[in-house]
Amino acid sequence: MDASSERIRVRRAPKRGQYDADTINQILDEALICHVGFNDHGGPFVIPTIHARIGANLYIHGSKASRLIRCAIENERTCITVTLIDGLVLARSTFHHSMNYRSVVILSRGTLIEDETEKLNALKAISDHMVPNRWDHVRKPNANELKATAVVQFDLNEASAKIRTGPPADDFDDYALPVWAGVVPMQQRFGQPSPDPKLAESVALPEHVKALL
Amino acid sequence: MDASSERIRVRRAPKRGQYDADTINQILDEALICHVGFNDHGGPFVIPTIHARIGANLYIHGSKASRLIRCAIENERTCITVTLIDGLVLARSTFHHSMNYRSVVILSRGTLIEDETEKLNALKAISDHMVPNRWDHVRKPNANELKATAVVQFDLNEASAKIRTGPPADDFDDYALPVWAGVVPMQQRFGQPSPDPKLAESVALPEHVKALL
Repeated sequence: MDASSERIRVRRAPKRGQYDADTINQILDEALICHVGFNDHGGPFVIPTIHARIGANLYIHGSKASRLIRCAIENERTCITVTLIDGLVLARSTFHHSMNYRSVVILSRGTLIEDETEKLNALKAISDHMVPNRWDHVRKPNANELKATAVVQFDLNEASAKIRTGPPADDFDDYALPVWAGVVPMQQRFGQPSPDPKLAESVALPEHVKALL
Repeated sequence: MDASSERIRVRRAPKRGQYDADTINQILDEALICHVGFNDHGGPFVIPTIHARIGANLYIHGSKASRLIRCAIENERTCITVTLIDGLVLARSTFHHSMNYRSVVILSRGTLIEDETEKLNALKAISDHMVPNRWDHVRKPNANELKATAVVQFDLNEASAKIRTGPPADDFDDYALPVWAGVVPMQQRFGQPSPDPKLAESVALPEHVKALL
């Protein structure tokens, strides 16, 4: 990660900026989805999608016919942002309210993956990112499905993380106010799986799905 | 909402597209944060921030000095996207895996709010969006804080929602496979509030914070 890149440097609250690969990778791996920013006809669009990381690259996939994929391949630069919200930070003044969060912003040029093995590896990583080990238990892509699916690779050379943790930081005078202050943690949780109405009764909930709960 | 706008029309999986204000407003109100897409020096950036809706307008706020705010005011167009993930959709083939989600994409030109009453109303809406009724229990912005904070308004004239619900849609032949299929619901949950270490012991957890849990 190139912390010297001016355009990726965290400028608001620079103390919250982090540039090491471990920190960035961990956030990318924990977040289920990313938001992809690209230009089409001269204006920005932001579209959510699932991603996965392999080493120092991030992958997204989609229909070859989609605007997202077309722009991700054609544009000189795409911005991919991942955000995890860890809690609400309640201060004594409205001004110092905040959130605890971990976010990553990546600037990169997309590359269409043409090699079939590389493509299947990326699709497996995306599947395993959603549900670890799912890939091994389902029907793999056939030739037509592979043909219809595009996989786009982005390097992580220009990426930065921004992280806020801890209690509120109030103005000195405000600490005397009788206002409750602190952090309300937030978490994304899975609920009880709901079987497809068309599922045969003989098919039990497998371990790799139970492991999510 | 103008469903006839070509650039906001949902093109991938058009059956998932919805354009009525009630649907769009409900998603905007439920989502804690949005992702703002804008151009700076010719390339896209995507930055997460908190938002609030009042009627047919969406508001964001930030430091007057931030790139996000400067671009949101200066650019001809900003894209604001909100995404709620409701569940993992596990199909019998990798290809038909999906998520249940509700997302909104807004294209709009930002307007800096100069009027103080309007500005305070928007800041109150943002505060109440994070924690309902919090505004009434904390110190309000003083003149310096108000001066340092910019509020930007976006109309919702060009907005669309995209929604997926329900079980997986597998290929006919795949229903015979002995693969578990269904939906694993996801929810954002609040955990036990953690008081600021500097909080006086006499200040109890108030009802408006308990109401989050």
